[in-house]
Amino acid sequence: MAKDKKLVEQITSMEVDFAQWYTDVVTKAGLIDYTSVKGCMVLKPAGYAIWELIQNQLDARFKETGVENVYLPMFIPESLLQKEKDHVEGFAPEVAWVTHGGLNPLQERMCVRPTSETLFCDFYAKDIQSYRDLPKVYNQWCSVVRWEKETRPFLRSREFLWQEGHTAHATAEDAEARTIQMLNVYADFCEQVLAMPVIKGRKTDKEKFAGAEATYTIEALMHDGKALQSGTSHNFGDGFAKAFGIQYTDKENKLQYVHQTSWGMTTRLIGAVIMVHGDDSGLVLPPRVAPTQVMIVPIMQKKEGVLEKAAELKCMLKAYRVKVDDSDKNPGFKFAEQEMRGIPLRVEVGPKDIEAGQAVVVRRDTREKYVVAFEDLNTKVGEILEQMQQDMFNRALAHREENTHTATNWDEFTDILEKKQGFIKGMWCGDQECEVAIKDKTGATTRCMPFEQENLGEVCVHCGKPAKKMVYFGKAY
Amino acid sequence: MAKDKKLVEQITSMEVDFAQWYTDVVTKAGLIDYTSVKGCMVLKPAGYAIWELIQNQLDARFKETGVENVYLPMFIPESLLQKEKDHVEGFAPEVAWVTHGGLNPLQERMCVRPTSETLFCDFYAKDIQSYRDLPKVYNQWCSVVRWEKETRPFLRSREFLWQEGHTAHATAEDAEARTIQMLNVYADFCEQVLAMPVIKGRKTDKEKFAGAEATYTIEALMHDGKALQSGTSHNFGDGFAKAFGIQYTDKENKLQYVHQTSWGMTTRLIGAVIMVHGDDSGLVLPPRVAPTQVMIVPIMQKKEGVLEKAAELKCMLKAYRVKVDDSDKNPGFKFAEQEMRGIPLRVEVGPKDIEAGQAVVVRRDTREKYVVAFEDLNTKVGEILEQMQQDMFNRALAHREENTHTATNWDEFTDILEKKQGFIKGMWCGDQECEVAIKDKTGATTRCMPFEQENLGEVCVHCGKPAKKMVYFGKAY
Repeated sequence: MAKDKKLVEQITSMEVDFAQWYTDVVTKAGLIDYTSVKGCMVLKPAGYAIWELIQNQLDARFKETGVENVYLPMFIPESLLQKEKDHVEGFAPEVAWVTHGGLNPLQERMCVRPTSETLFCDFYAKDIQSYRDLPKVYNQWCSVVRWEKETRPFLRSREFLWQEGHTAHATAEDAEARTIQMLNVYADFCEQVLAMPVIKGRKTDKEKFAGAEATYTIEALMHDGKALQSGTSHNFGDGFAKAFGIQYTDKENKLQYVHQTSWGMTTRLIGAVIMVHGDDSGLVLPPRVAPTQVMIVPIMQKKEGVLEKAAELKCMLKAYRVKVDDSDKNPGFKFAEQEMRGIPLRVEVGPKDIEAGQAVVVRRDTREKYVVAFEDLNTKVGEILEQMQQDMFNRALAHREENTHTATNWDEFTDILEKKQGFIKGMWCGDQECEVAIKDKTGATTRCMPFEQENLGEVCVHCGKPAKKMVYFGKAY
Repeated sequence: MAKDKKLVEQITSMEVDFAQWYTDVVTKAGLIDYTSVKGCMVLKPAGYAIWELIQNQLDARFKETGVENVYLPMFIPESLLQKEKDHVEGFAPEVAWVTHGGLNPLQERMCVRPTSETLFCDFYAKDIQSYRDLPKVYNQWCSVVRWEKETRPFLRSREFLWQEGHTAHATAEDAEARTIQMLNVYADFCEQVLAMPVIKGRKTDKEKFAGAEATYTIEALMHDGKALQSGTSHNFGDGFAKAFGIQYTDKENKLQYVHQTSWGMTTRLIGAVIMVHGDDSGLVLPPRVAPTQVMIVPIMQKKEGVLEKAAELKCMLKAYRVKVDDSDKNPGFKFAEQEMRGIPLRVEVGPKDIEAGQAVVVRRDTREKYVVAFEDLNTKVGEILEQMQQDMFNRALAHREENTHTATNWDEFTDILEKKQGFIKGMWCGDQECEVAIKDKTGATTRCMPFEQENLGEVCVHCGKPAKKMVYFGKAY
């Protein structure tokens, strides 16, 4: 194996340099390539196929809750972006501006959408008249642009793919219920499909979305102990409705403002999968988002009957996403290449296996080997994939638990930051000044006020004043 | 029925004003809405759901031929757009230019992609080294922007959704084979899924794509006798490869240029479906692209057991895309509304039907009624949907045949244009001057030189010189 591994490009060890390891994996596993457009990337087939699996499974979950898909323009006229004060302040500094159409300057410049609240509001103001038109539970899959200075593949790029849900409701209660419902859909999706445990909670006012009344978040812990915000769900109350005049006639024939929400997840999730599950051999994909779940590798494939048997096994395993690697590379090279690409299972079959009526199955995550009779292969592959999905979640959960610490005072807090990595749970006075001071002193930010509050003491971990909330702190991507 | 129909908004008759009928249908069937962004539309749930069905079925057909999906940036730096001379001349006058990122002017302005040949070339120049890397058969689903002056929903808008395939091959033969293969995929999709017959052929040099060696097209005939270009497939030869330096090392270790293709279909197809199949009651959707295939309408729904039976039938029909309209509107209103929306079948069920153990099934296209026993409903609905899909294709084909005329000289040509509508088949000398003159005099353009050539005479229908090709002429969208 050691010799074969050299045949595929080496990657930096994650313990030596996690950032370089990440960059090596995204490029050498064939997920992305850099482009002539600064800060924008190509999603190559192996990367885009993961996004397709995320999209299909997430979209199905959305539709089960009554979401309908729509598509709105990618441009926002400047005057529209400016209608909601907090929102424009949050986004104007980081948008791309279109000033010319064809050979002529535009009368009013437009930005490429950084997010589509303003467009949805403009649309809803026309589309909603009566209580009969409510709720509106719309979503769109598209790309958005934010003119970031520092970019990293998947984690922060000038253009990225996402979904953005935008809903309008008759009452504040309905809007709050939808906000939480979608956060739960996100959390469940991350845990069930991406095998990635998340903390559900509310963002502090400082960290909330521009224009939102409340922002809820799911936070995941990466292998290097940094946090990644993995999805957010916002309750806007009637702030946007008032700015855009979105009113409906209620059953008593009175005009009322709607209450709105929005929620989004992005290709950033692919970055999360890489950083939660990857290892020094490359990517490790949870079976449910693996574009290829099983790679069959024929051994001594020139011998009579080997390629035929490989094709037969592929047919037998058609319930899974399965391929045969019948390229002219040697098996060791193929093994290393498939490990780099994170393919969950490889099935080896050569002349001796055929004689014995069996194949060797190897798991990507644990490298466990199973010798399986051909007649049991279909069942066994299904079982191992299920087990692997579950084990990957459990390992990620154990890693998070090992890397979640409690601080009851400032000494403990700084001590943990110095000697350990991961989340720090601590009590907080609720004061924004305190929050800012913690960030300035340590670089750690409030990740969320978790729904599952614990009482870790009576005073704020920083200032010692009476505590209001238990908070997860962490350094974040 | 007449009285009930007034309950839903009236639409203009297609015979009175086809353009107004079209506009009425797209808005009143809830497919689109206009926006504050001039020339751009909102695809509402009923419109976007048709696109999703097109996308899913087309994408599956692509993947069967080995296509892999990717995603490239939406921006093209000006210097990149300018690399291929014909291409930039074709597109530069109609692109939107981004000049500022955040608060700062860009060093080099970028356009929003009108199409992505240049980006794919830039990517392939890096990604392709050896013959082992070929072919590349990539596709992306995205939106593109073209700064059109006159816009119409689906048919011509400043931003539209599409797919664009871009491939690179070792030889000219491979590129030509892929170009034709994808045209055949398009034609088959239009006929099988959209129930829309198409003529396959090659565009004249005048009408071909900017930068292409050959453009192939599928042309469909709308209800009003105008042609609609419904999909195109381009063979670029090695023109782009030379402009962008896309070379590979062949088996003899020599550097060779790749040969490229591109092919695209757009949301314009939804406009085609409307204009081929619609009638004076609104949209008529072929079952395979109908987001709702069956609408169950409970009659006297307040009577005990009616809504329960409707729900039971919905369950029974779960193999189809089925809904129950249990709103508080009266049945006549519901019927008219569902006709407007083009839902293929409605199933009526009331107290008397329940007593008789049957439901009434009504086809949207012919309004044929079927009384069907509950136990046969599932089978029968499947049969009727199949029959309807087939009948819709046959009617569209008959309409095209009735509206395809032959002209052997200029008098016949102008006489047809004056008195009839539809395609005109005629011989052509192959001269671009002649082609331009025909367009200038009549407004009719060469739609294509069909693969199925017929010999309609020896001389050009316009100039009388020796003919080279049989051509379909028509007025077009």
